[in-house]
Amino acid sequence: MAEPLRVGIAGLGTVGAAVVGLLQRHAAAIAMRAGREIRLTAVSARDRARDRGVDISAAEWHDDPVALARSGRVDCVIELIGGTEGRAKAAVEAALEAGKPVVTANKAMLARHGAALAALAEARGAALAFEASVAGGIPIVKTLRESLAGNEVSRVSGILNGTCNYILSRMEMEGLSFADVLADAQRLGYAEADPTFDVGGFDTAHKLAILTSLAFGTQIDADAIHVEGISAITPLDLAMAAELGYRIKLLGVAERTPSGIEQRVHPTMVPRSWPIAQVMGVTNAVNVHGDAVGELTLVGPGAGGAATASSVLSDLVDVARGARVLPFGRPAAMLESAERQPMQRHEGGYYIRLSVLDRPGAAAAIATRMAERQISLESIVQRRVLAGATGDRTGRSGQPVPVVLITYATTEAAIRDALDAVLADGHISEPPQVIRIERE
Amino acid sequence: MAEPLRVGIAGLGTVGAAVVGLLQRHAAAIAMRAGREIRLTAVSARDRARDRGVDISAAEWHDDPVALARSGRVDCVIELIGGTEGRAKAAVEAALEAGKPVVTANKAMLARHGAALAALAEARGAALAFEASVAGGIPIVKTLRESLAGNEVSRVSGILNGTCNYILSRMEMEGLSFADVLADAQRLGYAEADPTFDVGGFDTAHKLAILTSLAFGTQIDADAIHVEGISAITPLDLAMAAELGYRIKLLGVAERTPSGIEQRVHPTMVPRSWPIAQVMGVTNAVNVHGDAVGELTLVGPGAGGAATASSVLSDLVDVARGARVLPFGRPAAMLESAERQPMQRHEGGYYIRLSVLDRPGAAAAIATRMAERQISLESIVQRRVLAGATGDRTGRSGQPVPVVLITYATTEAAIRDALDAVLADGHISEPPQVIRIERE
Repeated sequence: MAEPLRVGIAGLGTVGAAVVGLLQRHAAAIAMRAGREIRLTAVSARDRARDRGVDISAAEWHDDPVALARSGRVDCVIELIGGTEGRAKAAVEAALEAGKPVVTANKAMLARHGAALAALAEARGAALAFEASVAGGIPIVKTLRESLAGNEVSRVSGILNGTCNYILSRMEMEGLSFADVLADAQRLGYAEADPTFDVGGFDTAHKLAILTSLAFGTQIDADAIHVEGISAITPLDLAMAAELGYRIKLLGVAERTPSGIEQRVHPTMVPRSWPIAQVMGVTNAVNVHGDAVGELTLVGPGAGGAATASSVLSDLVDVARGARVLPFGRPAAMLESAERQPMQRHEGGYYIRLSVLDRPGAAAAIATRMAERQISLESIVQRRVLAGATGDRTGRSGQPVPVVLITYATTEAAIRDALDAVLADGHISEPPQVIRIERE
Repeated sequence: MAEPLRVGIAGLGTVGAAVVGLLQRHAAAIAMRAGREIRLTAVSARDRARDRGVDISAAEWHDDPVALARSGRVDCVIELIGGTEGRAKAAVEAALEAGKPVVTANKAMLARHGAALAALAEARGAALAFEASVAGGIPIVKTLRESLAGNEVSRVSGILNGTCNYILSRMEMEGLSFADVLADAQRLGYAEADPTFDVGGFDTAHKLAILTSLAFGTQIDADAIHVEGISAITPLDLAMAAELGYRIKLLGVAERTPSGIEQRVHPTMVPRSWPIAQVMGVTNAVNVHGDAVGELTLVGPGAGGAATASSVLSDLVDVARGARVLPFGRPAAMLESAERQPMQRHEGGYYIRLSVLDRPGAAAAIATRMAERQISLESIVQRRVLAGATGDRTGRSGQPVPVVLITYATTEAAIRDALDAVLADGHISEPPQVIRIERE
């Protein structure tokens, strides 16, 4: 058996502690799979005194993760600090500069600097592995980079944020508002005190940027992603979706189109029969369409210390075995600079919910605005407000009535233009709700 | 870039032709991912004259796959002949003996000779890769062998045969009998003329034997698998399952128990909310429980030329990159000889459907037989036969009436013993239907 691989861990939060625990608990099995012992020799974190429930007494302590990366007792660095810049990036760069392989879960750093770090890793002959950066314990990075090497991938999409899926699941199941479920999720620790990063779709966007690059061999282009969060989704939307045979999920979607790569994060109506629609709670799922494999869907835990540590260990054992895989599955210099497909050119079906003032001619006027832009309607659902709520069941109330339109495939530009016209006509009492539909 | 990898393909059926097609269509992308060109230099098949829709004119032709494996123009052999022994095994052995890596889709050969072939491969320093042998395009081999390297796996289960899942799906959706759907599946090419290998559960067992070894690091032990097929499932069972919140799937299940490894293939009642229960038609799915990752489910095409070729290419690009992974993720000599958990000791819930002769005391007698063996019943559902069918809606008909019992967890031995007693009591008109239930 070869020399032990001496590992330094920078960042000892939930994931870091779980990695230490797995290395200790499964030491013998991991050594057998890796062909050598994997030995924790150094750690770095903010607070040396904190009890993390694992024994790190044998490891060298570093206050500075860059010093850990440069330590003569460290062959491989696991970066679990997080953050786009700063100490995390400095430690990763220091390790790679020294030709040491790096395993990281840092999606924000990769979404911003992934290609540059991959180029540095390749130049120094060091691995840069990041299975843990996307979808927690789901092996989607390895799947895209290795298992689908014989495919041309045309689409990758997924539920990549457990907090959002948890909130949407509970809203649907219990008929609760976004605000109520969010507050509950915060109490239960499923959502941060400042939830913007999750519920605004930005966490999903970071992960999608990485998946897009792996799937299409393109440079990471996080700025190209159209991002919408879930805070405007209402129980009525979820109920209407159910009635129409859909579920609403926050999806990250990257798609190759004739005019470029489309990357978008937004609430999406997904047919209830799709595997991805069945995924409830904090679970994540990723679907890939490849020309050879067809549809492949991976479902599993998107977060959590142990699940994320599982992905860190996957990379670490690869490193210990001497796996020679390029970070993005091809040389960083060969990552293509793809055309961005702007959101205005997105094509698909739309769910549009309008609060229509219940007056003669309103529905006809709206239908006309759609028809003028060649938008065909698959269905119109009008929910008359209950008599008890309006005090009048015999005729028009003048009050807003929810009207839902489902369109056939059209463009984002046509929809936006039509809705601007509808708004200008004065028949609706609030801005329309627009949710894109995914179909076969 | 390194020298090209010169590949010989033995077996040019649907999968072989699809591999050739992918190698040609995606040559540039594959070379970029592999770090070298992958060049088809030799082929072998039965019928040289047959048109396979792909251009193999540049490849050396061999009538004998062993000659192909020994050819000086072949660095790596793809074995797609199939069959436990004979030419397939001879070709694989010849290649490995010569130190040439082998990629194979041959589950029958691996289920029988996998450990010996792995030992040979390791001794010669050659790769033996078999992603395509289980679940078609689903990357479950790589996932178990590499992605879950930091986990102790306690359970792997799956829908591993598309034919059976297609038949059960259509029986459920359309209320048809097994025989009717089978005949239709044969017409449509989803089932073989002799369907025994698929519908009898044997194909699933071969695949399960391989997964068990990968999951638990044990020697392949196909003979230890308890195998039941789907031919006894009736539309009534499927309807009762639906009513009780389940679906019936033919699962292969391997589980680590305190007294050994349990391996079984049989129709299984699965809660409808589980991802695996949502998988309909020819699609396959595999679920793994690991101590770190928790539950991971992979869903995708279980068969078909292109999907299986996708897995062949995954292995081939690994080989071309010089990936150094042991066939079963650990040295073949370290594969453990695990205790077999006999089926009699299986613990779980049971669905039991009895044709009870509608006479006073029958139900009480059956309940007593269960209670005597400490079997607790979760529910009893009695479907009185419709009046039109019996000609008497007022009282007991003396005719058999279907009665379904759902038990809490008990043992297979207790169930079999109780049912023997019930049968001996003479209250039922035909042998009982027994379907095991999977629960959390």
